[in-house]
Amino acid sequence: MKLYNFEISGNCYKIRLLLSLLGIEHELVPVDLRQGENFEPALLKLNPRAQIPVLDDDGTIIWDSSAILTYLARQYGGERWLPTDPLGMAEVVQWLAVSENEILYGLARARAIKLMNKPWNPEECRKLGEQALEVVEQQLAKSSWLAGHTITIADIACYPYIGLSGDGGFSLDPYPAIRQWMARIETQPGYITMPGLMRVGEG
Amino acid sequence: MKLYNFEISGNCYKIRLLLSLLGIEHELVPVDLRQGENFEPALLKLNPRAQIPVLDDDGTIIWDSSAILTYLARQYGGERWLPTDPLGMAEVVQWLAVSENEILYGLARARAIKLMNKPWNPEECRKLGEQALEVVEQQLAKSSWLAGHTITIADIACYPYIGLSGDGGFSLDPYPAIRQWMARIETQPGYITMPGLMRVGEG
Repeated sequence: MKLYNFEISGNCYKIRLLLSLLGIEHELVPVDLRQGENFEPALLKLNPRAQIPVLDDDGTIIWDSSAILTYLARQYGGERWLPTDPLGMAEVVQWLAVSENEILYGLARARAIKLMNKPWNPEECRKLGEQALEVVEQQLAKSSWLAGHTITIADIACYPYIGLSGDGGFSLDPYPAIRQWMARIETQPGYITMPGLMRVGEG
Repeated sequence: MKLYNFEISGNCYKIRLLLSLLGIEHELVPVDLRQGENFEPALLKLNPRAQIPVLDDDGTIIWDSSAILTYLARQYGGERWLPTDPLGMAEVVQWLAVSENEILYGLARARAIKLMNKPWNPEECRKLGEQALEVVEQQLAKSSWLAGHTITIADIACYPYIGLSGDGGFSLDPYPAIRQWMARIETQPGYITMPGLMRVGEG
């Protein structure tokens, strides 16, 4: 299995983290977004959106981080990481949607403005990012995990850009339930970290 | 079953359309976004994101349009609208992700700037919207439906804001595969339209 990967991308880290939690051996193929390597023809052929991560599982190509999490959960994780009952699955998809909306366009973009000089509106990113943290905190004040009673790909999808939000100027001090949830994720067997990620268990 | 609904919201129309294709009776509860009714306490209690659609299926509450499509497909549609095999499901999730990213932040926002005076950046919406149309066109040039060999919730998720893109200043003239796909959707048994939606079968 090959993962087209950029070390400081939170979306790529989602996949590296799930692969590690599932104990799946894989090869990392480096794609440097800062050099525009995502626009090279070989990668565009795999993913018309010119983005990474892209997964190549013995010739089966999947692009989009939420889709790759879904594929890995269904193919290698049984019901544990993505239940297939209607409500259980819908609850996971709710948080995949938050990860693609408020978290990506708020927390991740605020970080990309600072780290990669992206031309987005910092005020809008801050507002969306705070909405992301509020809605995640509300859920985690009621429940140990975002969807259902165990860790799922909902948690894996939302965790990276929350853990990296300090890079974009956000503080997690006002969010105790989020910090406790991060500590629970850090203790999962097979857990790995990434550069810049806040580790609450260490602090 | 109750759907909290705003008539000119493409995200609400996704749900009305799937309910109609599935032949499910339901009650519409109007929520006027232009009056800010989505911030009323009763709705915030159902959806902390202060958004619609929200579905109430006999007390089971689901928010987020992708999550509601997932719930309805799994609860009432068997394998037809959302397959559960790993690749089949991942392909659907890929297009749900496009609907939440390029389509929502490009096509839908460009429309909301014009219809609701939203303060977003028109140039950025135009760029993302064109990326949305390009990537959907590329897929539909190869395949009748976005994911797999039949209509799925991937098509239902992407269709509304593509059909409404004229409101945001986009033309579908350069996208023949998209127009043929729209015509295929229009002929599905139970199909319904919404105000402002382009109907290619009529033109």
